[in-house]
Amino acid sequence: MLDPAGRVGVIGLGLIGGSLLRRLTGIGVAAAGWDTDPGTRAAAAGAGLTVLADVAEVVATSDTVFLAVPLPAVEPVFRDLAAAASPSGPVFSDLTSVKEPVRRLALRHGLSFVGGHPMAGAAESGFGASDAELLAGCAWVLALDEETDLTAWLGVAATVTGLGCRVVPCTSAVHDTAVARISHLPHLFAALLVAGAAQDPLALSLAAGSFRDATRVATTRPELTAAMCAGNAAAIAEELRRVAQQMASVGGLLGDPAGLTEWFAAARAVRQDWPPTATDTWLPAGADLRPRLLALGGAGGAVTRVAEDGVAACRPATSGD
Amino acid sequence: MLDPAGRVGVIGLGLIGGSLLRRLTGIGVAAAGWDTDPGTRAAAAGAGLTVLADVAEVVATSDTVFLAVPLPAVEPVFRDLAAAASPSGPVFSDLTSVKEPVRRLALRHGLSFVGGHPMAGAAESGFGASDAELLAGCAWVLALDEETDLTAWLGVAATVTGLGCRVVPCTSAVHDTAVARISHLPHLFAALLVAGAAQDPLALSLAAGSFRDATRVATTRPELTAAMCAGNAAAIAEELRRVAQQMASVGGLLGDPAGLTEWFAAARAVRQDWPPTATDTWLPAGADLRPRLLALGGAGGAVTRVAEDGVAACRPATSGD
Repeated sequence: MLDPAGRVGVIGLGLIGGSLLRRLTGIGVAAAGWDTDPGTRAAAAGAGLTVLADVAEVVATSDTVFLAVPLPAVEPVFRDLAAAASPSGPVFSDLTSVKEPVRRLALRHGLSFVGGHPMAGAAESGFGASDAELLAGCAWVLALDEETDLTAWLGVAATVTGLGCRVVPCTSAVHDTAVARISHLPHLFAALLVAGAAQDPLALSLAAGSFRDATRVATTRPELTAAMCAGNAAAIAEELRRVAQQMASVGGLLGDPAGLTEWFAAARAVRQDWPPTATDTWLPAGADLRPRLLALGGAGGAVTRVAEDGVAACRPATSGD
Repeated sequence: MLDPAGRVGVIGLGLIGGSLLRRLTGIGVAAAGWDTDPGTRAAAAGAGLTVLADVAEVVATSDTVFLAVPLPAVEPVFRDLAAAASPSGPVFSDLTSVKEPVRRLALRHGLSFVGGHPMAGAAESGFGASDAELLAGCAWVLALDEETDLTAWLGVAATVTGLGCRVVPCTSAVHDTAVARISHLPHLFAALLVAGAAQDPLALSLAAGSFRDATRVATTRPELTAAMCAGNAAAIAEELRRVAQQMASVGGLLGDPAGLTEWFAAARAVRQDWPPTATDTWLPAGADLRPRLLALGGAGGAVTRVAEDGVAACRPATSGD
């Protein structure tokens, strides 16, 4: 099996980190992990995974290290890693749901870093819920910021595409705005809809399919949703301002059925075309690879395989280059 | 089979009216219908339903007449009905998704009227999509306004509970606010979420489960959603103002993970308890039946059977009286 980034370490063996280490091990990558919790380490070893002694051993024996720790734990772990890593040490990547704040922490600690975010999750948490299939086939953002080393980025991308995931290249800021739009706002809207009906038992007794689907994610564990939203506060605040303006403008259309129909029709056309069908493309290695990767991600495309002479990719069939 | 309201007429044999006439006929009620479209009349007759010659014949031969016409058609049909109905003529009810504007039209035309709204629908429209099971078991609002005749209300309620539906008593204004909260806002939010991601192919490429569920109803036919929202413009405008205030207050919590967790936790608790389990109750006939019916509906309860000496009802097991 291809082992594109050499030895891979995983720090944090909860739902996501445990699933990642299971998947890496399952496809034959030389991978080892560590967790701050002794019970989790024992469970991972009992599942046949390689568990190391401490963070320093992970850093010393890995070419790429994925941090699968919650957002509030990123800064203390970065401090430990900066102390343990040599200048020729591993490339670090993370798996948290917000990229710009993590990017700033990595810069502050001088780490060789490629921020990441796999678009996958589950209702459960902890190693006990981990599953080698959880990350299979998902979209996985890898941040390509101006300071990101392209060779390091391609190495992490090779590992992630090796897992069967498609790698979406974009800047940290672009990522944070995108997830505010397609994940954090849906969570906030779901809670707002529930809150609006909460004091109104009659409304709840009439609620049916549109309410059920629109509020499904309101059952997510509140501390997870809160951490996700608080971590992306700046991008969400900007989106809330934009939505408030749009709500005011839609409110002005309520007396105009034709205008309102047109507005709903535009949204329907976009939703009916989602998800778009993909077509294959190829980006050759070369001086313009970085801007072409960013253009690919911006157009809704993703890298599917990293080779010596370029990257294989997919993009929406309807988009331009 | 029980035939509580005598002969029943249905004007308009599209999805909802066709389903209603099929259901009434199927359970043995003496029911007949009419539609403005000759092709629809032929299809209904071909399906074994009784189809009359015109609106005047429906009015002359029915004790209760349901209007299953779109909101913009209500006013012209009311005009025809007012011309055809004698003072001892039938009780009229409608099936549109907004009640206060229809109530005002019925008052203007001096009709004996009980506004109604079955909380059921389907993606398709027209008689071809009608189905005797479409309305089975749904919640069905019957408006109990200050001018509503309680005997007429109980007669329509008997017919509707006879279909297997539960009848939610409330005023027209309370209904319009409730459906703004649990149906119209979810439709507007779905379109707002799609519109926010529409210019951002990268966001659409990252979108997954939370976006999919939150935007499902954005695929509804836009002219239906627009007519529903435009018909309830006043209540929706009020809800949009309320939501804008709540959004601003949630925006202020983005830097406060503990406060944000508490807010999400409150919404989660309500959503997890929905739909509530129901317990049976009984409201005896008497002078206070009207306020007790309104209190029942306001507490999330509904009438399940109408008898000579009172009504059987259900209400959330956790609510007070």
